Amino acid sequence: MKIEIAKYSGYCFGVKRALNMVEKTLEKYSGSGKKVYTLGSIIHNPGVVIELSSKGLISTGDPEDIEPDSIFIVRSHGMSPKVLKRLAGKNIEIIDATCPFVKKAQAKAKKLEEQGYFVVVIGNRDHPEVIGIKEHVSGAGVMVIEDISEASAFLNKKKVGVVFQTTQTADKVKEIVSELIDKCRELIIYNTICDTTKNRQDSTRKLSGKVDIMIIAGGRNSANTTHLANISSSENSRTYHIESSDEINPEWFKGSEKIGISGGASTPEKDIIKIKNMIESIDS
Amino acid sequence: MKIEIAKYSGYCFGVKRALNMVEKTLEKYSGSGKKVYTLGSIIHNPGVVIELSSKGLISTGDPEDIEPDSIFIVRSHGMSPKVLKRLAGKNIEIIDATCPFVKKAQAKAKKLEEQGYFVVVIGNRDHPEVIGIKEHVSGAGVMVIEDISEASAFLNKKKVGVVFQTTQTADKVKEIVSELIDKCRELIIYNTICDTTKNRQDSTRKLSGKVDIMIIAGGRNSANTTHLANISSSENSRTYHIESSDEINPEWFKGSEKIGISGGASTPEKDIIKIKNMIESIDS
Repeated sequence: MKIEIAKYSGYCFGVKRALNMVEKTLEKYSGSGKKVYTLGSIIHNPGVVIELSSKGLISTGDPEDIEPDSIFIVRSHGMSPKVLKRLAGKNIEIIDATCPFVKKAQAKAKKLEEQGYFVVVIGNRDHPEVIGIKEHVSGAGVMVIEDISEASAFLNKKKVGVVFQTTQTADKVKEIVSELIDKCRELIIYNTICDTTKNRQDSTRKLSGKVDIMIIAGGRNSANTTHLANISSSENSRTYHIESSDEINPEWFKGSEKIGISGGASTPEKDIIKIKNMIESIDS
Repeated sequence: MKIEIAKYSGYCFGVKRALNMVEKTLEKYSGSGKKVYTLGSIIHNPGVVIELSSKGLISTGDPEDIEPDSIFIVRSHGMSPKVLKRLAGKNIEIIDATCPFVKKAQAKAKKLEEQGYFVVVIGNRDHPEVIGIKEHVSGAGVMVIEDISEASAFLNKKKVGVVFQTTQTADKVKEIVSELIDKCRELIIYNTICDTTKNRQDSTRKLSGKVDIMIIAGGRNSANTTHLANISSSENSRTYHIESSDEINPEWFKGSEKIGISGGASTPEKDIIKIKNMIESIDS
């Protein structure tokens, strides 16, 4: 049995940077009595979240829970500037770990609004990154489009500006944008899909097409990992999306020669290695 | 037999305006000894071209043929500003009958170039309107894309700006634009398809879907009439594109109850009426 890991796989630049900032912050304030918070999971990977929680990181769902005089880390997905302003007013130190690619999408959305465009964010409505981008546009002139049916229902507007959730697939955004073309006079599109996402998708597509079985490792709540799993499934019906090596079923690999592994942008390398080792142990 | 003419059919605003300017110019200079020229056919309708030629309008293919101290009418399709400048230098009076919608597409292409975009014109490479729009962009940063295969071959560029030939179909431009989306970081699209074109296409589609036979009247060299014929054919296999009532074959209508007629933007109303009368005469 031959196991190959996708050329681009695992932690992306933005996730590495955010985790690094978290580690440094926890170290700096260790023993100071100051609490260190994030709003929601720092990254969409349950294993990593548990590990950081054991080191003192408090993940809360409600900004009102964050105590004054504490430390607050903006996660890689970014967040609403309104909420951030409220926190800063409570004498909370803000450490901004927003992925620079997400920051760019936020800035483009804001600029489009200033230039008089109605802003469309193509992405998953409930994803924190999309919520954050949307909230960078202050007025009512913004909406999220998730799929082709929502794009078909879009009402004509003169000037429309579009940004993408950084982890969308090219096929999905193409489908949606083409619905908008004849519904406005002027359409400006900022392709804010990050290169990391594109590279991971391309190398997963390539690998899954040439193996018998494909394993996609990463959080089920991770948008980019789920996209990788969908891409892989469309190339290879024997695709399994797992969160950890514990989920591996030796039965999957019976009679298989070539196994591929890919991991989302929030999947630690050690998880991928562990999966590889586990499959090898089945083989022998 | 019931005959219905499409709600939007025949001469568009731009064509009417251009023909009006030609008539007025011919009248004004009649007997003055001054020659009145156009470059190519004033509109893409052979019948109209012959009629105006009998009134004195000279249609030439080569700008060098145009004599000094004459009158030159820029046709509704517009033209290259370079050629126009050369003519003006020869003491030729220029009367600009460029359709205002085409002028808008030319201006948008020029503006895009000034703002640093690589300009893409989606349209028929050899159509005078497209040649004219293209030549409003002075540098090398412009190309025409005719179909999806050319769009697929498009090489990545950072900033791309797109305008459409005014008579393109929405489906065609959607297909091409969606190919460009992930080939640039920033894509701005000016939807320069004119409302007239859209209305004619929509009403032709609607009518051809509910009749037994559909007649599309207009020049075979007319881009917009050919698009109407294609749209109609996809809804109704019994579609006939004719240039004049002489081409009508009574056999077509045997056993038919409902007949639809539509005409391109350069088709005179009298041609459409003549076709209607001819079909009625077959019926009786």
